[in-house]
Amino acid sequence: MDALDGQCWILTLSCEDRSGIVSKVTGYLHEIGGNIMEAQQFRDPETNRFFMRVEFEIANSTGVEQFESFGNPAAEFDMRWRFRRRDQAKKVLILVSRFDHCLSDLLYRRRIGELKMDIVGIISNHPGDNLHLPMRDKIPFHHFPVSKDSKPQQEAQIRDVIERTGAELVILARYMQILSDDMARYLRGRCINIHHSFLPGFKGARPYHQAYQRGVKMIGATAHFVTSDLDEGPIIEQDVEQVSHSDMPEDLVTKGRNIEQRVLSRAVRYALEDRILPNGRKTVVFRR
Amino acid sequence: MDALDGQCWILTLSCEDRSGIVSKVTGYLHEIGGNIMEAQQFRDPETNRFFMRVEFEIANSTGVEQFESFGNPAAEFDMRWRFRRRDQAKKVLILVSRFDHCLSDLLYRRRIGELKMDIVGIISNHPGDNLHLPMRDKIPFHHFPVSKDSKPQQEAQIRDVIERTGAELVILARYMQILSDDMARYLRGRCINIHHSFLPGFKGARPYHQAYQRGVKMIGATAHFVTSDLDEGPIIEQDVEQVSHSDMPEDLVTKGRNIEQRVLSRAVRYALEDRILPNGRKTVVFRR
Amino acid sequence: MDALDGQCWILTLSCEDRSGIVSKVTGYLHEIGGNIMEAQQFRDPETNRFFMRVEFEIANSTGVEQFESFGNPAAEFDMRWRFRRRDQAKKVLILVSRFDHCLSDLLYRRRIGELKMDIVGIISNHPGDNLHLPMRDKIPFHHFPVSKDSKPQQEAQIRDVIERTGAELVILARYMQILSDDMARYLRGRCINIHHSFLPGFKGARPYHQAYQRGVKMIGATAHFVTSDLDEGPIIEQDVEQVSHSDMPEDLVTKGRNIEQRVLSRAVRYALEDRILPNGRKTVVFRR
Amino acid sequence: MDALDGQCWILTLSCEDRSGIVSKVTGYLHEIGGNIMEAQQFRDPETNRFFMRVEFEIANSTGVEQFESFGNPAAEFDMRWRFRRRDQAKKVLILVSRFDHCLSDLLYRRRIGELKMDIVGIISNHPGDNLHLPMRDKIPFHHFPVSKDSKPQQEAQIRDVIERTGAELVILARYMQILSDDMARYLRGRCINIHHSFLPGFKGARPYHQAYQRGVKMIGATAHFVTSDLDEGPIIEQDVEQVSHSDMPEDLVTKGRNIEQRVLSRAVRYALEDRILPNGRKTVVFRR
Repeated sequence: MDALDGQCWILTLSCEDRSGIVSKVTGYLHEIGGNIMEAQQFRDPETNRFFMRVEFEIANSTGVEQFESFGNPAAEFDMRWRFRRRDQAKKVLILVSRFDHCLSDLLYRRRIGELKMDIVGIISNHPGDNLHLPMRDKIPFHHFPVSKDSKPQQEAQIRDVIERTGAELVILARYMQILSDDMARYLRGRCINIHHSFLPGFKGARPYHQAYQRGVKMIGATAHFVTSDLDEGPIIEQDVEQVSHSDMPEDLVTKGRNIEQRVLSRAVRYALEDRILPNGRKTVVFRR
Repeated sequence: MDALDGQCWILTLSCEDRSGIVSKVTGYLHEIGGNIMEAQQFRDPETNRFFMRVEFEIANSTGVEQFESFGNPAAEFDMRWRFRRRDQAKKVLILVSRFDHCLSDLLYRRRIGELKMDIVGIISNHPGDNLHLPMRDKIPFHHFPVSKDSKPQQEAQIRDVIERTGAELVILARYMQILSDDMARYLRGRCINIHHSFLPGFKGARPYHQAYQRGVKMIGATAHFVTSDLDEGPIIEQDVEQVSHSDMPEDLVTKGRNIEQRVLSRAVRYALEDRILPNGRKTVVFRR
Repeated sequence: MDALDGQCWILTLSCEDRSGIVSKVTGYLHEIGGNIMEAQQFRDPETNRFFMRVEFEIANSTGVEQFESFGNPAAEFDMRWRFRRRDQAKKVLILVSRFDHCLSDLLYRRRIGELKMDIVGIISNHPGDNLHLPMRDKIPFHHFPVSKDSKPQQEAQIRDVIERTGAELVILARYMQILSDDMARYLRGRCINIHHSFLPGFKGARPYHQAYQRGVKMIGATAHFVTSDLDEGPIIEQDVEQVSHSDMPEDLVTKGRNIEQRVLSRAVRYALEDRILPNGRKTVVFRR
Repeated sequence: MDALDGQCWILTLSCEDRSGIVSKVTGYLHEIGGNIMEAQQFRDPETNRFFMRVEFEIANSTGVEQFESFGNPAAEFDMRWRFRRRDQAKKVLILVSRFDHCLSDLLYRRRIGELKMDIVGIISNHPGDNLHLPMRDKIPFHHFPVSKDSKPQQEAQIRDVIERTGAELVILARYMQILSDDMARYLRGRCINIHHSFLPGFKGARPYHQAYQRGVKMIGATAHFVTSDLDEGPIIEQDVEQVSHSDMPEDLVTKGRNIEQRVLSRAVRYALEDRILPNGRKTVVFRR
C-alpha cells in the first residue's frame, strides 16, 4: 500500500455521553500522529447522546486500515464511528421529475468543484428530452417511467442502479413520486429530499398553492431525510424569502426555485462533508 | 372650523375591479386640490377585488367633512372607503399576560416617536408588579384576572374599556388567553395578535417546544388578525431566524422574543399607517 | 396592422413633480380604454422629481403607435416617457470572463422562462472552451481577447455587436475588464454590472480577499449601472450572507457566487420588466 | 472554602498551533473530573494561531484556584488562558449619549435574564432627563459633560468609575464621542462600540445620511472592539436590512435602530459568554 502523505480525514462518531470521551478520542488521534484541524461536538440533554466530528491531518497516511485500532476506545464507549478521507468524493445518485432547477444547480456546483461528488447516475420518471439540460456531463441517464401499478418494478430498477454503482447518497431533486415504505426504509439515512415548503407548514401536494391560499408573508423550502412517514423525516436545512399579497402562485413557484436550490445544495454539501449525524427524528448538523 | 394648512391625508378603499377607478379617484383628488405623495394599488385576480391606498397633501384642509363629495364616485363603484389624517394618532389598547417583551418594545417605540399611537390602556390578567416595567408612561393599567368561569365577565370588562376609551386598535402583545367567539367577532378586523411560531406550522400551545421536538432549523413569528378560528386569522407579517441542534427550548424562546418584537411592531406600524386592507382570509399589506 | 387583442403594456415616465400628474396619466389611459393592473410612483423630495410605472391592459391593441397621443399630456409636464409591450422580450448581450456562474444562472433562468429575454450574444475575453458551459443554447459566442493596447479595438468589436444586434441591455456577468470612459458613456443607463462586494465597502480588485483581511462578519454583492466612475454607478440591488472567522477567502468566494447570482438575476429581472428608473446617482426600483 | 457542586466553567485559550493541544487540554479536564459540554476551536491558517473555548461541568468545584495546575500544560504550549465560572455575571459599564434605544434594549434584556450582566454604571455626556428611561433599574447614573477642552478630565472621570467598580466590559451604546488614543488603548479588548453602518462602508459621521446619498439598497450596523484607529477595530457582529428609494434618511434611522439593537445585544452576549477571542485585527467568535 502506498503511503498517502499529509492527508485529511474526517472522523464522525456518536455514543451515550459520559466523562472522558473527548479526551480519549483526541488522545488517540494525537498518539497516531494526527493534528486536529476542526472539531465540533454536541450532547443532547434530552437523550444524553453525544455527537462528534473531527477533521484531522495525518502524515504517512496508509489508508483507512490504520485506524482499526480505534476499535478499542470505540468499544469502550459503545460508539458508532467512521473514518473517511476528506478528498474522497462520495458516489451520488440523483432522482428528478419534470422540474430540473435543482438538478441543474447541483450539476453546475459539481462542475466548478464546489460540491465534491461523483454523480453515478441521474434517474427520471420522464424522458431526458423533457429536461432543460441537453448537456448532462456524460452522466448515465436512466428513464424509468412509473405508474401506480409499476411502482414496485420501477423502484427495483432504482435499487439496482444503487447497488450496481455503489451510490452512497441519493438525492431527490424535486422527484415528484412518493416512495414506497420499503424503498424509504431501504434508503434510510442516505436519501435527501427537498420539500418545497417551510415544513411542518404545507405538507403534501402543491405547497406553493397552499401558501397562496393561506396568505402567508414568507415562503420556504426544507431539505430532510426521507422516511416512510411522508414530509416527517429529520430536517437538515431550511430557508425562506419574503412574499407579498401581489405574489401569485406562479410568482411563489419562481421565488421558491431559488430557495429550493439554496437549501438543497447546502444540505448536499453537509452530507458530502459528513456534517450531518442522525439523532432520532432530528439531525445534528455541524455547520461550518 | 379652523383651516389646517398643508395637511397630509390617507385614503384607503376597496371595491370590485373595473376600468376607470384609478382615474376617477386621482381625478377627484386633483379637483379638490390634493397632491398625491404615494399611491399603491392591487387587484386580486382570484376575486377581482381592487384595493388602493393614497397619501395626499392638501392645502386649506378643513377636516374630514371636506371629502364628503367623494361619496358620489364611491357609490358609483360601490367602494368601502375612508379618509384619515396622517398625523392623527390612533387610539390603541394593549393586552398582555406574563411576558412583556412585546409590550416593552411597543412602549419604547411610542416613546421615541417611531410608532405614532395613543395608548389608552394596558390590560393584563396578571398583576402589574409581574411586569418588568415599573414605569408605564402613565398609561392606565387594568388588572382583570380571568378563569374559565369568569371569562365572560372579564371580556365584558375589556369591552367596557374599549368602548369608554374609543380604542380603534387592540393589540394582543403575548396575551395568553383564548378569546371567546363573541369577543373575536366583536374585535374583527381591529385586533392584532402575535403568535410565536411561523404559522401555519406549530399552531396552538408551546410552539417553541413543538419546534424543538420537530427539530426545525428556523423558527419564526406571525402577526395576524384575530378571528374566532384560532391561529387561522389573516396573516399580516412574518419573520424567522436560523436555529441549530444546540438550541434548547429556552434558547428558542430567547431568539423568539426578538422575532416577536420585530414582527409585531411592524404589523402595528402598518395598522397605524392604514397600510393593511382586509381581503377575506388574507390581507393586502401596502408595505413601504 | 393587426389588432393585438387584450395586450399588456408598461408605461414608465419621469418629470418634475406637480399637482395633477397621476390624474392626467390615469385619465388618459382610461380614455383610450386601458385598465390599470399595477401602478407605482415615487416623488424624490430632494429633487422634486416624480417617477411612475403603470402596467395596463388594453383591448384592440394596435401597436405602440396608438399611444402617440400621449405626447400632449407628456409635453405639458415635460415628461420622459415610454410605452412597451410587456411580453416583448428585450434584446440582451452578456459579457463574461473566466467565472461563468452568473452566466450559467442567467441562461438557465431564460431557458425555463423565468427571465424573458432574447440573448443576442455572449462575449468573452477568454476562449469559449474555458467556460463550464459546452451547451450555450445556440447563442452566438464571440471571443474578443483584450490587452492594454488592444482595448480600443476590442471595445469597438463589442460596440459593433451591440449595433448589429440591437442589444438593449448589456450585462457584465463577472466581466473582469474595466471599460474605457468612452465605452462606459456609450453604455450609460443600459449596462448592469455585478460587483462582488457590498458596495461601497471593498471597491476595486479582489473584494473577497479584502473582506477576509478586514474580518467582516457578512459579505455581499451589488448590481449597479456602469458609469465611468468605477464602482460608483447607481446601485440597483444588493444582498449579503453571514460569514465567520473560519471562512477562508475561497469559502467567501464560494458563498459569494450564490449572492452574486441572486443579486444579478434580480437586477436583470427588474431591468427586463422596466422597473428601474434612473435618478441621478441613484435608482428608483419599483420592486414587485 | 465551600464546595460549589456541579458547576459550569468556561476555559478560553489561544496559542501557536501544534499537534497535541486538544488532547492535552481535554486530557487535563478529564483528569480533574470535568465533563465537556461544548467545545469549539479554530486554527488560523494565516498566522498558525490556535483558539479554543470549552464549557465543562465539574463536581466538587472549589473555585478558580483548583485550575492552577493547568499552568503546566499551558506553559508547555505558551498559552494565553483563562477559567471563568459560567454563571458569574460580568461587571459592565454602559456609555450613552442622546440616543438610548440600545441602552433601553440592553437594560430590558438584563431585566428578563437574557443577558447575564451586572451593570455597575451608566455614563452619559447628557443629563439623565434626556433619556427616555425614567426608570433605570437603580443603576448608578453619571452625567459627565464633555467639550473639546474638557475631554481629558472627562475621560479621567470615566476611568475612575471603571477602576472603582471593577468594570470588565465597557459598552459604547451609541456614545457619540470619539475616545482619545490614550483612552482607546486603556480600553483595548474590553470595549465594544456599535457603529451605525455596515463597515467598512460609511465610516465617520452620519452614516445613514451617507447611505441615503449613495442610494444603497441595504443598510447595516457593526459591533466592533474600540481601537485608536476609528471605525477600524476588530469586527464582532454585523447585520443588515433591505431599504428602498422611498426610504428617507429618517426612515433609515428608524430601521437602523432595530439593526443596532440586534447587533449590539448579540455582540454583548458573545462577550458575556466569553465567545470572542481577539485575533490581531480580527476576532474569532464562537457563535452558538
